[in-house]
Order: sequence, then structure tokens, then C-alpha cells
Amino acid sequence: MKFSELTQQLGVATIDTSLAIRPDLDPALVGIAAIDQAATGALSFMEGDRFAQWIHNTEASGLILSSDPERQAIATARNIAWIATAQPRLLFAQALSHFYQPWQAAPAIDTTAVIHPTARIGAGVSIGPHVVIHEQVQVGEGVCIHANGVVYPEVQIGDLTTLHANCVIHERSQIGKNCVIHSGAVIGAEGFGFVPTDNGWYKVPQSGVTVLEDQVEVGCNSTIDRPAVGETRIGQGTKIDNLVQVAHGCQIGPHCVLVGQVGLAGHVELGAGVVLGGQVGVADYLQIGEGAIATAQAGITKNVAAGTMVSGFPAMPTKLWLKMMAALRKLPVSKPKI
Amino acid sequence: MKFSELTQQLGVATIDTSLAIRPDLDPALVGIAAIDQAATGALSFMEGDRFAQWIHNTEASGLILSSDPERQAIATARNIAWIATAQPRLLFAQALSHFYQPWQAAPAIDTTAVIHPTARIGAGVSIGPHVVIHEQVQVGEGVCIHANGVVYPEVQIGDLTTLHANCVIHERSQIGKNCVIHSGAVIGAEGFGFVPTDNGWYKVPQSGVTVLEDQVEVGCNSTIDRPAVGETRIGQGTKIDNLVQVAHGCQIGPHCVLVGQVGLAGHVELGAGVVLGGQVGVADYLQIGEGAIATAQAGITKNVAAGTMVSGFPAMPTKLWLKMMAALRKLPVSKPKI
Amino acid sequence: MKFSELTQQLGVATIDTSLAIRPDLDPALVGIAAIDQAATGALSFMEGDRFAQWIHNTEASGLILSSDPERQAIATARNIAWIATAQPRLLFAQALSHFYQPWQAAPAIDTTAVIHPTARIGAGVSIGPHVVIHEQVQVGEGVCIHANGVVYPEVQIGDLTTLHANCVIHERSQIGKNCVIHSGAVIGAEGFGFVPTDNGWYKVPQSGVTVLEDQVEVGCNSTIDRPAVGETRIGQGTKIDNLVQVAHGCQIGPHCVLVGQVGLAGHVELGAGVVLGGQVGVADYLQIGEGAIATAQAGITKNVAAGTMVSGFPAMPTKLWLKMMAALRKLPVSKPKI
Repeated sequence: MKFSELTQQLGVATIDTSLAIRPDLDPALVGIAAIDQAATGALSFMEGDRFAQWIHNTEASGLILSSDPERQAIATARNIAWIATAQPRLLFAQALSHFYQPWQAAPAIDTTAVIHPTARIGAGVSIGPHVVIHEQVQVGEGVCIHANGVVYPEVQIGDLTTLHANCVIHERSQIGKNCVIHSGAVIGAEGFGFVPTDNGWYKVPQSGVTVLEDQVEVGCNSTIDRPAVGETRIGQGTKIDNLVQVAHGCQIGPHCVLVGQVGLAGHVELGAGVVLGGQVGVADYLQIGEGAIATAQAGITKNVAAGTMVSGFPAMPTKLWLKMMAALRKLPVSKPKI
Repeated sequence: MKFSELTQQLGVATIDTSLAIRPDLDPALVGIAAIDQAATGALSFMEGDRFAQWIHNTEASGLILSSDPERQAIATARNIAWIATAQPRLLFAQALSHFYQPWQAAPAIDTTAVIHPTARIGAGVSIGPHVVIHEQVQVGEGVCIHANGVVYPEVQIGDLTTLHANCVIHERSQIGKNCVIHSGAVIGAEGFGFVPTDNGWYKVPQSGVTVLEDQVEVGCNSTIDRPAVGETRIGQGTKIDNLVQVAHGCQIGPHCVLVGQVGLAGHVELGAGVVLGGQVGVADYLQIGEGAIATAQAGITKNVAAGTMVSGFPAMPTKLWLKMMAALRKLPVSKPKI
Repeated sequence: MKFSELTQQLGVATIDTSLAIRPDLDPALVGIAAIDQAATGALSFMEGDRFAQWIHNTEASGLILSSDPERQAIATARNIAWIATAQPRLLFAQALSHFYQPWQAAPAIDTTAVIHPTARIGAGVSIGPHVVIHEQVQVGEGVCIHANGVVYPEVQIGDLTTLHANCVIHERSQIGKNCVIHSGAVIGAEGFGFVPTDNGWYKVPQSGVTVLEDQVEVGCNSTIDRPAVGETRIGQGTKIDNLVQVAHGCQIGPHCVLVGQVGLAGHVELGAGVVLGGQVGVADYLQIGEGAIATAQAGITKNVAAGTMVSGFPAMPTKLWLKMMAALRKLPVSKPKI
């Protein structure tokens, strides 16, 4: 694909392109690569300063750049075609789709799948080998359930949702449209509810449901439990990474991001657009306001106000945490006066 | 179900009920709900102060309360039938069973299951589609193994135990009676044992076994390894949440609770009734005494005495940790003298 | 097996043995056990001081010891045959193989496996019940894929590699020779890549691949993602424990060890022989030098130089961390001057 063809097909508003001054510089692109690994014929991108020196060294034939005249000039001088945008990474992601399409299973129901006769299966679905679908399940149109997935009774799965291999969706869960559940994830299992008694822990029945709204993504081997009563709910467009634990009754707003190994205790509420870094933990019943950010490994023990950034354990405003850590490094090591 | 009928069927000793003074206040209950979400016809409960204000607002028709005359009076005045007990949450859990029964697979062996002829299968079992049971396995009476579970050779599974979908039970593991293994959990896999040599890591064979005593529950995608020699043992009635790692050779006492994402290194010993909060880590060979508690994210690097509560990293008595954190916040940020 | 027979078959250079002075002391060994659990007829070992007192009490009939004349003399006096070596644990591991062989599935392809006709399957493989192998997969000689494993298209699996039950290997992944992937692990799933837009998170296609070199071991329910472009690579002989998350684009050197629940964010680079303790987290794009060690729960936020040991959050040299923690404990709790 010619560089000029590609630039015409990308949807993001672009600021400028080398084609304006060098229409002859229109290389054939054969693939896409990171800037430090790109070979001739590759399209690559640069955002921020992490790989800044590679503008002088990359062998890429095309680049997606930000509005940085200096970098643009260097690229032109090196005979690299470029396109400039306010969002290089987004344009790169869109360009990727022109070179790579993920593998999709053919729309068919494998003969080894075990599907209860009361299940209602939409048109155009792909149901892989050894999938098990129990009674009263509703599967929307164009859904893809990969090999060995298990769907317990009365689950609803919205149109165009994909379940990768070996997922388990527990009874009564409601999965929205255009969701992606990655391999090994478990949705809607019994919440961890026990009451202490003289004879040990008494199990609280978990009669609630887990609801995933549309465009939710859940990472490999993550677990999202259902509550004793009511709902666990994951808001529209929220993205959850691998090995994340969302306990019973959590209410997660739309467009949140939970990075790998995050753990939410029971009944946590996240506002819209909350971002929790890797291995962050949140204690039960806490509320994290809209747009708040917790950096990796933060241990959240109190409510977090909207728009704030917190760090450390116990989590506190990131600036305070950094100040404390700096002060701690400067402590004298002399013996204390008693 | 009438409120009065329900109260007669609950097993916990109750202190008082509105029926004693208002036998006419006997609503029909149609469901059960959290107090902040309850609608007319719902039974709910209140314990502690978290939802205290809802006594004035809840639309529940019945309430389980503690011995708090003020709340009881408010409920009565609002025409809400109530029952008082020292353990509202326990009574609520019992009441739930009158409104909700978890789905159970029918007792039958699915024709797609692959069961080795030397396996011994008890009466009344439910073995789901695509389950695989290897040689010399013993499955007790009334056991339920959900779809796609895999049982390696020589495993023993006690009566009335449930394995949810996609579990794996490795060779020679012994699972007690009335256990619940949730979806995706892996029991008895090889411990992580390697010895450094000049040619890399030499794998230590893992000849031991994993033993789960009766009434143990293991959460989704949790992993409990077997040791090189001897046993990994989980005591009776211990409850383990999702994504927990229990390494080779751990000895966990009865009635412990391990909350989500806890990690135990090799050969850790927990006494009876130990409670480890979410994401707690324990270093290898440590001993945690009976009834000790570690709050969430604690990193335990030394033995913990029975009955103590520890926090932080490295874990220390919770009071000391709180004191240290308070002192840290008050440190001056002036430049240090050199 | 006689003690003398066993010692002749062990490959590690030994320093000394009781047979040199007491050839008559040649017990029949019937098993192998930890020194604190050994019964008559057992072979055991002692390394370091953790179980030092057991030299006086163990009922083992044979011992593997270090070059410690005192312990050797005590053992001889107690009529325990012994062999001394610089690496008792390694010799113990080798001895274990003479008493225990892990269960292996017979080399056969189960009739319930679903194997695409374009897959190429090597000689001597074992493919268990309900395994699913998609198009263009290459499976080497002697490979064992246990029950319910799923292999997406175009995967390559090297000779003699074992996949335990319920693993998922995603499209285009390359698994080397003699690898072990434990139950429930997911290799090569889509990396967690999203770009913020006004309409929510835009998914970055994940066109890259995950590569595991030879002799890599991956623990139960661990997840190793593939990147948007390029490779995620795990070096030869690296050992990864249970519930570990390796994000897209990480480059892990040979002979590393990642203990349970470690989490690596995107594009982390580990040099050769790096050891990360349990629950360690590493932020994205960081480089950890050859031979560096991070103790359990460390949160690594900056590059780590080769050969250093780091601890705490944010991770710093272990000695500095310990000094800071000691200073923190000594802080006065008086009220601060305002």
C-alpha cells in the first residue's frame, strides 16, 4: 500500500504531511513496526520523548508524528514520508487495522458443542468445539464463543460479543454487546460471602447477578463475582486487564481502566473514567470519584475524590506521597533519644 | 411468604420481633434486597452503621435488625415488620435460602464426559459435558463436576463436593467432603521448585500431594500447588477467595479466610482462624499464629504471633504501622544537613 | 534401593560419604521426605540452618548433607548414612527422580480431540480428550497437550513440550522445546492496548506474537500477552510461577525467575538471571539489569542496575530500604511544630 493511499483512509484529523511538500516521497508500505525495530517499508510512529533519538536512526519508510516541526524536518531530510497529528498513537492504531486483521473463527456451530435445547442462539454466531451452553441462555447475533467456553443457565450475551477460549459465564449474568471476554476469565461466580459462627463460616447465598454493559473488555483469567443480592455492574466501555479481581457488588462506571492484577473488594464504586494502575487494591464499600487515578500498587483505604491522583499505602494524594518518601530518605539514622 | 412464616423457619436465636407488639404487621415478602435498594415486599437487614440513615428511607417491608431499640422503634413507626438478633447478617444469610436456591446440575453423567474405566464414581453424581476423569480417580456420592473439569489420576473427591466449570485437579490430590472449587481453580499442580546450577535452573520433582479437608472453598482461578515431598494441606472449613496463590507445602489451619489475590510462598503455616486481607503476601516458611489477622496488602516477612493484627510492609502490629504512617506525614520537608 | 546404589547413580560431585568409613551402614531406602517428617527408610537432606536441630532427631535412614564435619559426625553416630555435597538441595532433587516419576499421559491422540486437518502433528505426541487445535498449528515430536487445551491458529510448539490441562495458546505464538505450560495458563492473548478518545477507549490491534524460548516454564493461570507490534519474548530457561502477568512487549532474558503473582507492565526488559520475588510489580518500559533481584512486593518504578537488590515501594536498594524502615520506627510521635 502506498503511503498516500493509507493517509487518505485514516479517519483522524491530521495536521500536516510530507506529501504537501514532497508528493514524490510516497513509499510502498509493507508492514508496521515500533520505531526502534522498523525496517525499510515499515510504517511507525513517535509520541513523546521516550524514543526521540530514533528519529535520527529509524529505518522506517513512513512515520506518524506529532506537530513538531523539528522532527518533521529531520524525517523529510532523511527521506521518510510522514503524517502529523495531535494523536500519533491513535492514528497508529487505526493504521494497524490496514495491515492486520485478527483471526476470526468462521460463523458456524461446531458439532461437538453441547447446547441445551432451550437456549436461543442468534444468527451468524460462531460456537467452537466443546462449548457448553446451558438452559435458557440467550446468545445474540454474531456472537463468537471460542473452544471450551462454558455458559451457565439464564445468561444473556449481547450481539457481536466475543468469548475467548475456556471462559466461564455463570448463571444469570448479562453480557452486553461488543464485549470481549478473554481466555480463562470467569464472570458472575459466587461472591465471597461468609458469616462467622461458632461452627465456622456460614456461606451467604449469592442470589445476585453480574452485568457487563456494552463494549466492556475483560482480561485473561480475571474474575468478576456476583453479589448476595443486587448487581455487580461494569459500565459501558470499561476495560479490564488480566488477572483482575472484581468482588461482589462492585459498581464500576463507564470508560474505566483496571490494569493487571487490580483487586476490588466488595461493593466498591468507581465513577466514570477512573484509572487504576497495576496491582492496585481497593477496600470494600469505598467510592472512587470520576476521573480519579491510582498509580500502580496503591492501597486505597478511604474514599478518593473525583479528579485526584493517589499513590502508596495507605493511598494518599500522589504529591503528598512523593513528599513523604523524599522526607523518609533524608531521615538521620542516629540512635533515637529515649 | 408471610413475614411471620419466615421468622418461624429461621434457625438463629432472635431477641425480639415487631410481631410481639404488632401481630397485624405481617407483610407478604416476595424477595430480599440490600437496604438501600429494597422495594416494597422485600426483606432486608441492617448491621452496624454504614447504612444507618436508611432506616428512615428504606422501602423494605421487613427488616432484620440488631438489638437497637431506637431503630426498632423507627421501623415499627414506619410500618416495617422487623426481627432483632445479635447476628443480623447471619439471619439474613439464612433468610436468603428461603428465596433463592442456586442452580444445580441434574444428577447424571453426560455422554460427552471421558471417564477412565478404572475410576470409581459414587451414586448420585452429576458429571457435566466434556469432563475428563483419569485412571484410579475416586469420586464420592453426590459430587458435581461441572463442564470441562479435568481430574488427573488417583485423585480422591469426597461426597457432596462441587467442582465448577474448567477446574483442574492434579494427580493424587485429596479433596474432602462438601468442598466447593470454583471455576478455573487449579489444585495440586507442581510446586515451583528449582535449584540454581551452572546450566540454569534444575527442576525439583514434585512428588507430594495437595489435601483439602472438608468444607473447604477455593475461589475462581486460584492455585494451590503440591510440594516436592509431603503435603500441602488446607484445613477444614477454610475459605479461599479468587486468584489466591498457595505455594507448595503450606499448612493452613481450619476456618481460615484468604481474601482475593493473597499469595503464600512455600511452606507457610497458618494456625486456626487466621484471616488474611486482599493481596496480602507471606514469605516462605513463616508461621502465622491462631486467630491472627493481616490487613489488606500487608507483606509478612516474620512470624506473626497468635491473636495479633498486622499491617503494612514489612508487616508490623497495626497500631505501630498507623503510628509510623502518622509520624511520616508530619516530617518536615526542609533540606537535610549534610 | 540400597543407599550405596543410589549414591553411585547421582550425578553431582560429592565431597564425602559415610560409606568411606562405615561401608556396613548401607540402609535400604524406600522413599524420600523432608527431614522433619522423615520415617525409617527415608532419604532426606539438610541445607542451611533452618532445620539444623533435626540432625539430632530425624528418623531418616539416609541424609544428604553439606560439608559440615560436625553434622556428619552426628549423623554417623546416630547410624544415619550420609553423603556430603556442596549442593545438598540439588542432590536431593536428583535423588527424588529415583523414587518418583510424574504421571505421563500415554502417547496417543484422543478421539475426542478436534484437530484441524492443516495442523501438522509430530511423532509420539499425546493429545488428550477435548483438546482443540486450529489451522496451521505445528506440534513437535513428543509434545503432550493435556485435556481441554486450546491452540489457536498458526501456533508452533517445540519438541517435548508439555501443556497441562485447560491451557490456551493464542494465534501465532511460538513455544520452544522442553517447555512446561501449567494448567490454565494463557499465552499470547491480546495485549491491553487502548487509546483515549472522546468516544471512549479505542482498541489498538495486537498484531505481534509471543515467543517462549526453550526450557521455559509458565505457572498455572499465568498470562503472557502479545504486543501491538513485534514480540513478547521469554528467554531460555526462564521459570514463571503461578498467577503471573507479563504484559505486551516484555523482553525477558534467559534463566530469570518470576515468583507467584509478579506483574510486569508493557515493554519491561529483564536481563539474564533476574529474580523477582512474589507480588513484585514493574512499571512499563523499565529495564532490570542482569542478575538483579527484587524482594517480594517491591514496586519498581525506575530502572534497576545489574546485580543490585531492591525492595519496597518505590523500590530502592534493599539496604537503603531497611535503613529507612528502621529510621521510620524511631520517629517521635510528638505533635509537630506548626
